[in-house]
Amino acid sequence: MSIRFDGWPHVLHAQQFSRVWIEKELLPLTDDMEVVFKYRGCNVLAGRRLVSFFYQPSTRTRMSFEFGIQYLGGIVAFSTENAREFSSGAKGETLQDTVAVINRYHPDVIIMRYDHNMGSELAAQVSEVPIINAGDRNPGQHPTQALLDIRTIFKRHGTADNLKIAMVGDLKKGRTVRSLSYLLGKFKKVIIYFVSPKNTKMGGDVKRYLRRHGVEFHELTDLREVAQTVDVVYQTRAQTECGTTIDRRHGYFFVDKTILGLMRKDATIMHPLPRVDEITIDVDNDPRAVYRKGQVDSGLFVRMALLKMILAPQA
Amino acid sequence: MSIRFDGWPHVLHAQQFSRVWIEKELLPLTDDMEVVFKYRGCNVLAGRRLVSFFYQPSTRTRMSFEFGIQYLGGIVAFSTENAREFSSGAKGETLQDTVAVINRYHPDVIIMRYDHNMGSELAAQVSEVPIINAGDRNPGQHPTQALLDIRTIFKRHGTADNLKIAMVGDLKKGRTVRSLSYLLGKFKKVIIYFVSPKNTKMGGDVKRYLRRHGVEFHELTDLREVAQTVDVVYQTRAQTECGTTIDRRHGYFFVDKTILGLMRKDATIMHPLPRVDEITIDVDNDPRAVYRKGQVDSGLFVRMALLKMILAPQA
Amino acid sequence: MSIRFDGWPHVLHAQQFSRVWIEKELLPLTDDMEVVFKYRGCNVLAGRRLVSFFYQPSTRTRMSFEFGIQYLGGIVAFSTENAREFSSGAKGETLQDTVAVINRYHPDVIIMRYDHNMGSELAAQVSEVPIINAGDRNPGQHPTQALLDIRTIFKRHGTADNLKIAMVGDLKKGRTVRSLSYLLGKFKKVIIYFVSPKNTKMGGDVKRYLRRHGVEFHELTDLREVAQTVDVVYQTRAQTECGTTIDRRHGYFFVDKTILGLMRKDATIMHPLPRVDEITIDVDNDPRAVYRKGQVDSGLFVRMALLKMILAPQA
Repeated sequence: MSIRFDGWPHVLHAQQFSRVWIEKELLPLTDDMEVVFKYRGCNVLAGRRLVSFFYQPSTRTRMSFEFGIQYLGGIVAFSTENAREFSSGAKGETLQDTVAVINRYHPDVIIMRYDHNMGSELAAQVSEVPIINAGDRNPGQHPTQALLDIRTIFKRHGTADNLKIAMVGDLKKGRTVRSLSYLLGKFKKVIIYFVSPKNTKMGGDVKRYLRRHGVEFHELTDLREVAQTVDVVYQTRAQTECGTTIDRRHGYFFVDKTILGLMRKDATIMHPLPRVDEITIDVDNDPRAVYRKGQVDSGLFVRMALLKMILAPQA
Repeated sequence: MSIRFDGWPHVLHAQQFSRVWIEKELLPLTDDMEVVFKYRGCNVLAGRRLVSFFYQPSTRTRMSFEFGIQYLGGIVAFSTENAREFSSGAKGETLQDTVAVINRYHPDVIIMRYDHNMGSELAAQVSEVPIINAGDRNPGQHPTQALLDIRTIFKRHGTADNLKIAMVGDLKKGRTVRSLSYLLGKFKKVIIYFVSPKNTKMGGDVKRYLRRHGVEFHELTDLREVAQTVDVVYQTRAQTECGTTIDRRHGYFFVDKTILGLMRKDATIMHPLPRVDEITIDVDNDPRAVYRKGQVDSGLFVRMALLKMILAPQA
Repeated sequence: MSIRFDGWPHVLHAQQFSRVWIEKELLPLTDDMEVVFKYRGCNVLAGRRLVSFFYQPSTRTRMSFEFGIQYLGGIVAFSTENAREFSSGAKGETLQDTVAVINRYHPDVIIMRYDHNMGSELAAQVSEVPIINAGDRNPGQHPTQALLDIRTIFKRHGTADNLKIAMVGDLKKGRTVRSLSYLLGKFKKVIIYFVSPKNTKMGGDVKRYLRRHGVEFHELTDLREVAQTVDVVYQTRAQTECGTTIDRRHGYFFVDKTILGLMRKDATIMHPLPRVDEITIDVDNDPRAVYRKGQVDSGLFVRMALLKMILAPQA
């Protein structure tokens, strides 16, 4: 009854999406969702119940899923924003027991952010209700972020083929750049520039995957070397809550007026947010900066599209 | 207008329920609720507003009440999962002031978990809105858990008369075994085996109540002595957040394959959850284990039945 | 489309309300809201979406806004009660970025409590969605509290002109007395008695405003001196979470039976709540005490009226 992604009813990691599915199913549906949003909602998911189960802080991911289900006519049946501390997780219960119990109340979908790698996969093993991974770690993934990033790239550049992209900052722990790298492996002639301090380089698992899929990539420590070359600068935040520091003495890992001056007129500046100071605020109003509008919008529309596909595939 | 339990409009403790009410009113209504759930909800509580006011962590109790009101067509008008820290409780306000204020907004029912004994009774003294005790301490009660446990026992054994039950683990602080013991005092020829380390024995208040109601009980330190005798093993968790430890050197206080091998084929293994390691996971798929399915389901249906009774007794 | 308060679409501080607006628009509408509440809600805000974004604990303010939107037929689309810890605020994001993102989901109104002064004004600078300040600090304001206090005064005394009011307790950090003082500056021949220890005197900014608006005020350290004179005693709580202590050896800063005995029969005792011990509980049932009923009710009705005005000004 519900849609399956590469054989799964669950949304767990970026590798499970095919290029055909993205181009033929997801992206057209996100455009429909944009229209639904414009007209302030619809009723296609009337009576459907979403559970938000977040073991970690979140504003935008939780909010976009919760707004999304409601714009589609469904409800947020239960929401917790710190399951680690306030649910039975605090008493030593396993994730599998928790998910088994949630299943008994028959929600239609569970949005889960977990604080260790593989949380959503563990959950999926015991869940008949579809699980959507809203970010896990460490190092983890954030597959719906990768989908919204791809939609943003398509909206700006028409395709992800032939894309030249610089991913900048904390590539070791940043789950968004990991998921996006996996997803870009589905496209042709992509070149990725990983720009980071030596202590936060992209993980070997992602690099092996890219080699296997024939994606060209380079590792460097100064964004200025490629700023004029790339279509997209994808800037990320230091995961300071995980102990990461970005030492600015040893390279150039942020976006400011200098980088703006180097970049092409048709290039795009992306950031998954939250942003601290790695993009200076004088960049915000540049037409190439899409992190406060286009990416956020695509996040809502992509998540609405996923909810529609999973909960009402025939409607 | 609203139903009264032994003279109260509130659900505060297990003693207030009569056997006749359980058998003639509650249990038939829970079967109706199972049908409502099967057909994905009804509208009998349309326009009714529930408030969840939890001073302590909870997944399943809060979630089952919130799903329950929504399956009945009502709404969760307000929910807080850590009232101790995030509400005015943090500023030194008394519970009575808080409850008086909540009353002014006219919710239809208040689900309250408090972190000291008598919280719901204090609340009930100032509340015209029905209060449902969702667990208090210490030592406290959890009356709706006792009702779901009784329903589970009825579903498995047809009655609670003549029941032989072993309650195992932290009997001193575990509020579920306290409430269930009070409730079993309403039935005939029940025998309770309290199996616990000496530092977590069942409280004198409960034992005096059982003596007064002619319930036979025994205290022991090894579950193996009665595993082959009992109809039900009711295993509980060490309340480690209250400082309790279960020293396994001095007895046998958990359920594993050894206990399974001793138990009768038609016996039942219950646990209020969350479970840590006091039931090993190789027990989970045994047909006698009902803690991940039957008990959870009964929890939802019993709470739906209570909400229906209190909010729409004539409907 | 949406109403503007002194040129703003936002509710930020008490100075922005005019006396004419209060008397001709707000107060009549609050009486309508009382009727809506009596009949258990209406549909005037059907389809409208409220976001609660609280960086600080709140019971009554958050609850009254959330109940309010629902009594008017709208929904709480998203709610967080500790944005500081559980949203992206915890990762170092600026308030402006957070508010810009929330705007993209197109809620109809954002209720915000921030933990520094000017939070709601910063938010308003980047928000096209109306912001309602639900309390900021330090020293801050709580403009909707001032409106409910004015409504309470009108209900009890018919007008705020010629009012003699004692504001008692922590006047330095208490945002409610600050907002109410600003609002009383709109009325004629008001006399304010600021009764506080020397370490918690009313701030110079408020006193300068009062002088500019011709409001007579006096500062003293003993409530007994004016208890028999005033129409209203407005008692406040020590903001102990901000480090304030009220030293009772150096004055008389609380309300008890002694004060009750001094006060006029037609006087009024107000408190914004939460109350700790600065009003003794034997005062609660005195007919002059309105803090547990009349003020709470006015809080709901005033917030409903604001939501109605902002979200459906023509309806």
